[in-house]
Formats: sequence, C-alpha cells, structure tokens
Amino acid sequence: MDLERLSKQVAFLIETDKLKRVLRQTLLTDGKHRENSGEHSWHLALLAIVMQEYAREPVDLPKVLKMILVHDLVEIDAGDTYCYDEEGNRDKAERENVAADRIFSILPADQAEELRSLWEEFEARESADARFAAALDRFQPLLLNYTMEGVMWRKHDIRKDQVYSRNSPMAEGAPQLWKYAEARIRDAISKGWIR
Amino acid sequence: MDLERLSKQVAFLIETDKLKRVLRQTLLTDGKHRENSGEHSWHLALLAIVMQEYAREPVDLPKVLKMILVHDLVEIDAGDTYCYDEEGNRDKAERENVAADRIFSILPADQAEELRSLWEEFEARESADARFAAALDRFQPLLLNYTMEGVMWRKHDIRKDQVYSRNSPMAEGAPQLWKYAEARIRDAISKGWIR
Repeated sequence: MDLERLSKQVAFLIETDKLKRVLRQTLLTDGKHRENSGEHSWHLALLAIVMQEYAREPVDLPKVLKMILVHDLVEIDAGDTYCYDEEGNRDKAERENVAADRIFSILPADQAEELRSLWEEFEARESADARFAAALDRFQPLLLNYTMEGVMWRKHDIRKDQVYSRNSPMAEGAPQLWKYAEARIRDAISKGWIR
Repeated sequence: MDLERLSKQVAFLIETDKLKRVLRQTLLTDGKHRENSGEHSWHLALLAIVMQEYAREPVDLPKVLKMILVHDLVEIDAGDTYCYDEEGNRDKAERENVAADRIFSILPADQAEELRSLWEEFEARESADARFAAALDRFQPLLLNYTMEGVMWRKHDIRKDQVYSRNSPMAEGAPQLWKYAEARIRDAISKGWIR
C-alpha cells in the first residue's frame, strides 16, 4: 500500500468536509435552515439520476454524477456566490480558480487532474453533460424556492428579468424542465413573489 | 411531455429534501455541527470516487455512486439509528422497510423499483459493489471522529469491542482502508478516546 498516496486522499476527504458549512441562499423545506453546498451537491446528484430522461442530448450519467459531486468544492475557499449578487459575480471566476488550485492539489496528481478537469468542464458548459448538470443546478433551487412560496426571491427583492436571465439557460440542458420551471416562474410572478 | 410522470419525480425531489435535516452522531470538523444524512451521502459518494482503487474486488463505480446516493433515504421516516444503539438497531430493519415502501413509491413505478433495489442491494451487502459502499460508510465516520479526537466515542463511552465489531467488516469491502482505520483505532485506544 502506498501510504503517501492514501494520506493525500485522506487529507482531501477531511478538507472537503468543510463544504458542509458553506451556506447557500436556498431555504430548506423545513422553512428554518439554509441549504449548504454539501447537501445541495447530494440533492443535485439524486436529481440527475431521476431526471436523466429530460436531458436535451444523451448524457454520460456517471460523468454527470462525478461532475456534480465536485462542482461546488471551490466554494470551500471562495464561498457560495448568490446568483443575483452582481458585485460578487464579477470576480467569482478568479476567486474560484485560486480555490481550485489549492483544493484539488491536495489529492495525488492523477486524481487532482481528473477532478479539476470535471470542474472545468462543468464551468465551461460546453459539453452535453455539463449543460445538463448546469440545468439541474438551476432547476433544484428554483423548485425549492417555489415550494417555499418564493421566500428568497421576496427577501432579496428579485425581479422577473433577473429570474429569466438566470434560469432560461436551463433550456440548453433540459428543455422540458425549463418548460416546467417557466410555468412556476409565471405563477410566482402572478402571486407577487417575484417583482 | 408526460406531466403526471414529471409531477411524481418532482414530488420525490421535494420529499427527499428532508434528508438534509436527519442528524447523525458524527460531528463535522468545525467541532460544532452534527452531520446530516444528506451531506453524509454526498461525502461518501466523493469518497467512492477518490478511494475506488481500494475496493477488494473490481466495482461498478456508477452503480456504487447510485447506491450511496440513495442508501440513507429511508432515514427520512426511520431516522438515523446510531450504530452503537442496541435498542434502536433491534427494529431498524423493520422501520426502514416501512419507510422504503412509502418513500420510493412516490416515484414512477420503474424508478421506484430501480432505486429500491439499489437500497436493498446496499443493505444485503452481498455484492462487491455493496460491500465496497458499506466499507466507505464505516470508514468516513471513523475518520471524521478520529480527526475530532474521538469526541463521539468519548461522549457515548464506546468500548473497544464495539468499535471492532462495527468496523472490522470494512475489510470485506476495502481491506487497505480497514488496515489504515485499524491503526487509528489502536491510536485512539492508546489515547483513551475509546474505552
């Protein structure tokens, strides 16, 4: 057994525990707790299994799952940037790149390279797999927020044009989910949950 | 689009959000929060990707990932049963079976059957995939607990024979990880963290 290799893998495991304390803007359906990026990643992966049939193009599910499981790791250093935070989104890519340099390199080099390239593929949204994963990453918070009567849209006074601009790319990865989501957005607007 | 099918899938997604509020006995490395079963499932899946090379027999990683992602869903109804809770473990299987009946059947029948059978395979620990997943499910909390200076062993006054009896089956799925874990157990005993 290569103990140096295993030690690096174990160090990565312990480091990634921190993702469970990175809080997002989504409220859980208990109405009390904000979702963290660890449990969000789990929920997205479950969604990928259940919603695979709605991918616009055929996807490689194992790859989508891996991509989803690592897609938020950079937030351990960079924090979760709220999708409607214009200021925070300006330097998001730069902050996350620095984070990726540190976090993935805790692993042995071959695994660091594999996981970092999955993260880069997710961010680039150029492959069918990445577009499907990114669509789920929009669909899940929208659905939870709609279920909670738009609490986070109301809290942050979010406008219709912001919601459309954030969520319409969903159509590139999962057009039927976008159709379903759009009906919820229209309903949320009619109820005054979105300005 | 089959809206009835999609509605069932969405209902399942919303229901499974509850797993994020099922608390386990493991303490996160921040030393303040108990781990929940949603983020635990994410962490295990990440572990499966990184530790795949230590599986005793060749495993089907995509299947292992799916198995891990659904393995704790029954806890939404049955709660997390602490591995050293003898009383709770007596009727655990029965409680979890009833939970599985309700939770998986929220899905369309074909998916309910697929995910339930993955859960049953995990529980039976008869396949190489299930033995590897179960080994990780022991390795992860042990490692976090060791990192936190055995806080949960000390809190619950856990004995050496209990730790060995719970964790030694790790060898069936990932013998090298068991070897690594055993060295930590011995160290924890020598430090008085395990009785």
